Amino acid sequence: MPVPDLAPLRQPTNEELDQAFARVTRHAVRTPLLESRAFNERVGGRLLFKAEALQLTGSFKFRGGINAVARAMERDGASHVVAYSSGNHAQGVAAAANILGVRATIVMPADAPAIKRDNTMRWGAEVRVYDRYRDVREEVASALAQDLGASIIKPYDALDTICGQASCGFEMIEQCDRLGIVPDQALICCGGGGLTAGVALALHRRFPALSLFTVEPEGLDDTARSLAAGERLPADDGASSLCDALLARIPGELTFAINRDHVTAGLAVSDAEVAEAMVAAFRELKIVLEPGGAVALAAALSGKVQVEDRTTLVVLSGGNVDPALFAKIINH
Amino acid sequence: MPVPDLAPLRQPTNEELDQAFARVTRHAVRTPLLESRAFNERVGGRLLFKAEALQLTGSFKFRGGINAVARAMERDGASHVVAYSSGNHAQGVAAAANILGVRATIVMPADAPAIKRDNTMRWGAEVRVYDRYRDVREEVASALAQDLGASIIKPYDALDTICGQASCGFEMIEQCDRLGIVPDQALICCGGGGLTAGVALALHRRFPALSLFTVEPEGLDDTARSLAAGERLPADDGASSLCDALLARIPGELTFAINRDHVTAGLAVSDAEVAEAMVAAFRELKIVLEPGGAVALAAALSGKVQVEDRTTLVVLSGGNVDPALFAKIINH
Repeated sequence: MPVPDLAPLRQPTNEELDQAFARVTRHAVRTPLLESRAFNERVGGRLLFKAEALQLTGSFKFRGGINAVARAMERDGASHVVAYSSGNHAQGVAAAANILGVRATIVMPADAPAIKRDNTMRWGAEVRVYDRYRDVREEVASALAQDLGASIIKPYDALDTICGQASCGFEMIEQCDRLGIVPDQALICCGGGGLTAGVALALHRRFPALSLFTVEPEGLDDTARSLAAGERLPADDGASSLCDALLARIPGELTFAINRDHVTAGLAVSDAEVAEAMVAAFRELKIVLEPGGAVALAAALSGKVQVEDRTTLVVLSGGNVDPALFAKIINH
Repeated sequence: MPVPDLAPLRQPTNEELDQAFARVTRHAVRTPLLESRAFNERVGGRLLFKAEALQLTGSFKFRGGINAVARAMERDGASHVVAYSSGNHAQGVAAAANILGVRATIVMPADAPAIKRDNTMRWGAEVRVYDRYRDVREEVASALAQDLGASIIKPYDALDTICGQASCGFEMIEQCDRLGIVPDQALICCGGGGLTAGVALALHRRFPALSLFTVEPEGLDDTARSLAAGERLPADDGASSLCDALLARIPGELTFAINRDHVTAGLAVSDAEVAEAMVAAFRELKIVLEPGGAVALAAALSGKVQVEDRTTLVVLSGGNVDPALFAKIINH
């Protein structure tokens, strides 16, 4: 059964990006761009960290959520939204629905981190659980949306979601301009590619020569493989990762169409490199990162791309990690 | 043996405060003012968090350090500075000296948290260890400064240090103005009273009706007792606390002279309330707080002052906590 797709599968216009930025800015935290001398000295370059873990709901996903829910209300007259998500998109849509005054029902896997499920419910959303290994979440959500007469808010492969994520890039542009910085490159975590697509569209408007790299977990680096092959390729069957936020197994259609035009190459990091980056962020930046939120930092610190003598934007995308896992990692 | 006191023990002028703000701004992180809907709903009021844990060196102490080292260079022609500190002032002065190009020797207790000692050395400072229970740190530092021909950078009871800390207040003023907020009150962690004095002088220039509360560990609430009595009184003999950054046992002379004119009352929190606040900051703000950095949040969450129906500035002053302790607290 196909997912009803009300949002168009075409690239956003500059006007749509600008309108989304204005819409998101009314509700989102303007997250800081942080810098650490310890990291700069360690890598021999300049690293600037966009701290999206400090965003409302603890990840950048609120940006796409608030824009997509607002557009569903304008376009479809939606009074109820449905989303499927392992956690951060769930919270982003739940918060957006709460703030904009519509109902939200979220389809989540039974093994989603408890902190993500609890926070989704705390924003007033109803949570329906599915089995990640038996059910197809798009089908569960689609049937539910039809039953409820609700609009589906897709996690990445939708124009409105991508336009919302672009606000993260527009903020970095303003922050770089204030510091008088022209960045050489940007490292962005990548699941389905929505953050990358939005941020790429924004950053390349102001910094056309910027190199852009996606960062994914090893084995789940479907975007890296797809970029190298020039067509959408899946991740390894059975590949798993500490990064519960980055388990998408194939790039989105729209996100890949955008990212292939903007991304230089895809990088991949191991769970051990991710854990080391979480510890480093704890020690040097005093920011809590979830595994999926630490992959870009992991790539910078483990030499997956040259950062020496360069100015690199590093997006720290989220911080929703269960206390027991975080404690185990920093205590290692 | 008296500590050579080159900095005057009088209240700073408005011009000195403004000059310090300009001086600190050239080097310090402009830390964000964060807000969490979860906290606001929990307390029924508006809490705005000044995230000083994100400051260079992981605490507000860099602000006072950079101003005081710069002034020692201007005033005394200092090329070497000495400081005594359990950790955050140590790092603040070490970083300031490194950035401004002078030598630093820091006198630290043998039982200071490893993360604070390591970071102090990483900024290029030499660390001299003393026994907290046998030696008087002011005497150790004074003898050392005379030997080395160095200037002492005092941790709180000095005009230049206080002027540097005031920059934290001036930033909050600009951030409140941008949000169109007139805060009702502010909660500030208090050891020797330097941050409180600086922030109070700044905030009361713009918001003269603001109520200001210090927050200290129970038993070490010498500032609270001194404010109530109208004279400087010591903490309980033998009182201890999880808050290694807030172990000062009597208010400073200058800081108390300022704070008695500005502070409404002093509050005290238990170690259990501090630990709960550290967990809450981890969950809701994704910020790493050390125990001493969490006391103001602890006071807000544990009802030590009315925050319902009020807008409250809460200073989160530092995040330098050893991983093992942090892991134990969030895992509890």
